[in-house]
Amino acid sequence: MAHLIDSDVFLAFTTYATIVVLKMMFMSPLTAYFRFATKSFANLEDVVGLAKTPEERKKMLQSNQDVERVRRCHQNDLENIIPFVLIGLLYTLTGPDLSIALLHFRAFVCSRLFHTVSYVLALPQPSRALSWMVGMAVTISMAYRTLVTVFYL
Amino acid sequence: MAHLIDSDVFLAFTTYATIVVLKMMFMSPLTAYFRFATKSFANLEDVVGLAKTPEERKKMLQSNQDVERVRRCHQNDLENIIPFVLIGLLYTLTGPDLSIALLHFRAFVCSRLFHTVSYVLALPQPSRALSWMVGMAVTISMAYRTLVTVFYL
Amino acid sequence: MAHLIDSDVFLAFTTYATIVVLKMMFMSPLTAYFRFATKSFANLEDVVGLAKTPEERKKMLQSNQDVERVRRCHQNDLENIIPFVLIGLLYTLTGPDLSIALLHFRAFVCSRLFHTVSYVLALPQPSRALSWMVGMAVTISMAYRTLVTVFYL
Repeated sequence: MAHLIDSDVFLAFTTYATIVVLKMMFMSPLTAYFRFATKSFANLEDVVGLAKTPEERKKMLQSNQDVERVRRCHQNDLENIIPFVLIGLLYTLTGPDLSIALLHFRAFVCSRLFHTVSYVLALPQPSRALSWMVGMAVTISMAYRTLVTVFYL
Repeated sequence: MAHLIDSDVFLAFTTYATIVVLKMMFMSPLTAYFRFATKSFANLEDVVGLAKTPEERKKMLQSNQDVERVRRCHQNDLENIIPFVLIGLLYTLTGPDLSIALLHFRAFVCSRLFHTVSYVLALPQPSRALSWMVGMAVTISMAYRTLVTVFYL
Repeated sequence: MAHLIDSDVFLAFTTYATIVVLKMMFMSPLTAYFRFATKSFANLEDVVGLAKTPEERKKMLQSNQDVERVRRCHQNDLENIIPFVLIGLLYTLTGPDLSIALLHFRAFVCSRLFHTVSYVLALPQPSRALSWMVGMAVTISMAYRTLVTVFYL
């Protein structure tokens, strides 16, 4: 594995990919936080210890706007960050130029951090739409470069 | 990285994996298209600039059958295409026979293209079910071959 | 690719990652099983051949608690198992100690098997919460080790 570790592009990809996957994973405890803060859960076994009466339990099993917002943000991460890591890894293995690769990785991670802030805080559009587009553009650009380099159908 | 790029199986995997991940990503703009076409959105900040009255906004925040269909298709892609890419990469690194590997990659990509068409156009069953099964069978076959080659618990 | 295959950590990662991805994929046929068992489907074309009257079709398109439980479990797998495989691969390529790596891989796979059992059978909390936390802790620990080894911003 020595020469993978010797490649600066690989080191940079590993760093940015790990950071952005950790950001995606952070949505899970954030969802849990909002579930407890708004007393809104998805499973009967989650509310048995928290609610005493059947009416209270039923109320705790209703969906909540804030929880659903965080879950939509998490879902958008799954739809965008995972393709970035998969295509980014293949792109990295094609041996791209370090400065161009860094530009891609940095733009993606910044765009997704801004996307999360604009989603969770419900900032006015088009802030969320634009940050989503930057992330998509980065991944498509890496995919294009990868296909041009390795094309083998 | 030179010898990874020298491997035909790796070049073929990279090509097919990139194509099928791009196909999965295409579901995002398709969802956005259907959201605008049917005026059906998920977040309040998305409709503020489009609707003038509170009643109109409320109407635009209701779920729509066509949007939900595209989203279910996208979800099915996440559940099937990501396992294909993850297991396919490990399978590729075990050094499989090129012709057998190509058979797997081509069958998977074709099955998922057909799956998307049959889902979005709501073709009669079992067209969608069969295309889903072909994709599952390909990934399970690669997983089997990978486990047999590398098994180390 | 020879030296990747020569690495015991890589063989172990490939084995555990393949097993846990197969476990995640198993949720798809399980969902299909519960859909048929409870006669609860998501698409009109799925019920056309099963129901004769329009009322029967409408009834079959309502959501079912058991199906939704399996789908939530599947979603939790996507949110946790995919980050494990992505970060685990990068961690493996940093050349960690075999015994420490095995500890991570085994703890993760066991925690997710237990998570699925506790989710599908609706075991009393905190069984599901604890198994989820073990999985998160493993992935965060691998991410930390990876970042410390390769850090390149």
